[in-house]
Amino acid sequence: MTTADPQAAAPDPIRYEGDTDGHLVLIDQTRLPVELVYIDCKDVETVWEAIKMLRVRGAPAIGIAAAYGVVVGVQTASSDSAEAFEARFHEVVEYLAGSRPTAVNLFWALDRLKGIFAAEKAAGKSNAEIHAALLTEARFIHEDDRKVCRAIGKHGAELITPSAGILTHCNAGGLATADYGTALAVMFTCHDQGKNIQVFVDETRPLLQGSRLTAWELMQRGISATLICDSMAAQVMKEGRISAVITGADRIAANGDSANKIGTYGVAVLAKAHGIPFYIAAPISTFDLSLPTGDGIPIELRDPVEITNGMGKQTAPDNVQVYNPAFDVTPAELIAGIITEKGVISPVTPENVAQVVAG
Amino acid sequence: MTTADPQAAAPDPIRYEGDTDGHLVLIDQTRLPVELVYIDCKDVETVWEAIKMLRVRGAPAIGIAAAYGVVVGVQTASSDSAEAFEARFHEVVEYLAGSRPTAVNLFWALDRLKGIFAAEKAAGKSNAEIHAALLTEARFIHEDDRKVCRAIGKHGAELITPSAGILTHCNAGGLATADYGTALAVMFTCHDQGKNIQVFVDETRPLLQGSRLTAWELMQRGISATLICDSMAAQVMKEGRISAVITGADRIAANGDSANKIGTYGVAVLAKAHGIPFYIAAPISTFDLSLPTGDGIPIELRDPVEITNGMGKQTAPDNVQVYNPAFDVTPAELIAGIITEKGVISPVTPENVAQVVAG
Repeated sequence: MTTADPQAAAPDPIRYEGDTDGHLVLIDQTRLPVELVYIDCKDVETVWEAIKMLRVRGAPAIGIAAAYGVVVGVQTASSDSAEAFEARFHEVVEYLAGSRPTAVNLFWALDRLKGIFAAEKAAGKSNAEIHAALLTEARFIHEDDRKVCRAIGKHGAELITPSAGILTHCNAGGLATADYGTALAVMFTCHDQGKNIQVFVDETRPLLQGSRLTAWELMQRGISATLICDSMAAQVMKEGRISAVITGADRIAANGDSANKIGTYGVAVLAKAHGIPFYIAAPISTFDLSLPTGDGIPIELRDPVEITNGMGKQTAPDNVQVYNPAFDVTPAELIAGIITEKGVISPVTPENVAQVVAG
Repeated sequence: MTTADPQAAAPDPIRYEGDTDGHLVLIDQTRLPVELVYIDCKDVETVWEAIKMLRVRGAPAIGIAAAYGVVVGVQTASSDSAEAFEARFHEVVEYLAGSRPTAVNLFWALDRLKGIFAAEKAAGKSNAEIHAALLTEARFIHEDDRKVCRAIGKHGAELITPSAGILTHCNAGGLATADYGTALAVMFTCHDQGKNIQVFVDETRPLLQGSRLTAWELMQRGISATLICDSMAAQVMKEGRISAVITGADRIAANGDSANKIGTYGVAVLAKAHGIPFYIAAPISTFDLSLPTGDGIPIELRDPVEITNGMGKQTAPDNVQVYNPAFDVTPAELIAGIITEKGVISPVTPENVAQVVAG
């Protein structure tokens, strides 16, 4: 392995090694960016702890880790009776479901494995055959996410010129997914295509996902990454260093209004004021067509301590009032395009959203 | 003293107690906001150390502290010969000049005291008379700054309606001056007038002057202060909570372009996009009419460590590229008015600037 090949240099955040008797390997995201530490998950307890303690985070990544966690978890019963194997399977599924009860992708992945188990059992398959089918399904979930990331990257890269300056906010990278991520997939693909892009990374207070994770991911792949405070984005735009802004999204309404990490809306307003296109990169699964507009998206308010004691040290007066919204909603009219695995939605209108999401 | 009187509850950042044999009392700003600690400066070494170590900071405050520092410093020679007293005076002035060699107000204050000393000596005054004249001059510098702050507060308060929501960035408060500060002077005056204002305070990365100092100053005076991350300003504006933005300025060009803490420009752009007036509050001494526009204002780049290890803990990858401009320039067209001790400059045009500054 040499650092000349950025693909080789960039570690997989999630990989499964071996056959049904193999194990899951995760990057411990809580140790980044200071240390790159892998966790060998050879039992389900280690997978559970990794999800619980946010060592693996991001909706797709949690689902994939849980699926492989089931494969690892049933190993202890692979030589037992069919009944004992089934009992162990359900025990493992229930156990992993408790690791992060609010993570939608966790339940989605576990439900898929439950469906596979039921189908294989109904077909009279052996423990070994069922176990192999579970691994196949986990790998399918993993591979499917990889394909989505790569397709987003490909569609997005068509929007970016060589030597472009790109600004991003928060972390919409590979660490949260199987592979290339969403917003970062566009940058990774540009880099693969030989476009010498320059990325400016908002540190993203209060939790610093930009400085801790995004800057690290870009550097791992040999992409020029420059860290700034969130308050510097306007200045960098004014200096003419930015030709596009790309962020991820957590939830997108039917008209294209997009909820994402707090600060995204402000960046979109600044981009508009400087004549810079602002793009969202997100999989089709992010769309919630039951919401006509972003007005219906609830804004979670988080613990004041994230702001007052952000890095383990008190930096604000005792008992100060704090407003700490976790997300904001960027209205569709500020979004030049939404980059999905099925193509780019542009202009962002309810009709174009419906056509791409349903198409 | 009761907390019902906000004036009484708010501590003076700088005060001088007693006559020529008295001493200077400073708030140790490096201990805020966790602790309110006063430093009794009974010798010039303590004043020197307080300026050097940023225990007292802000251009006007440094000048005032240095002036009182001279008064304290010559006490040891008050009973000596006229020659020894003069030698001690110059020794003290030189010594204090070395505490913070880049602080313009430090030299300005020391030069004023040198002028006083020379005039009194030429008039054949005694040590005691000269010492008294030095204290009178120090008190004049102090009182003059207080009057400037109060006048800015009075003019600015006329722009603010009762129950207004105000956003501010960085610290343009009393801690940097003798008294009410500049942007905060407007808020303190509104509060004195019984206007029930609500202030939102940008934490102001990287050095957190907003959370450490501004929030503290507002709370000390019983004003509602809500701390937010810089990235939340746009959301707070969108929610309709802000009716005016007020910040300080470090340097203002002849056309009204204003340099201030990094992030100010972005806030001004966001204010414009939300139809919210953006004001600068600054004394006439901030204007540099030798600069036709803000293009001539150099932007200091600061140490990357302020961003990567902001609060004593590494939060970014080793060797990450960092862009850390200390200031930005807000163009005059984004500024609804510049609030000075001589009145409000509005609209901000070269003609109106010239008229108020010269007038």
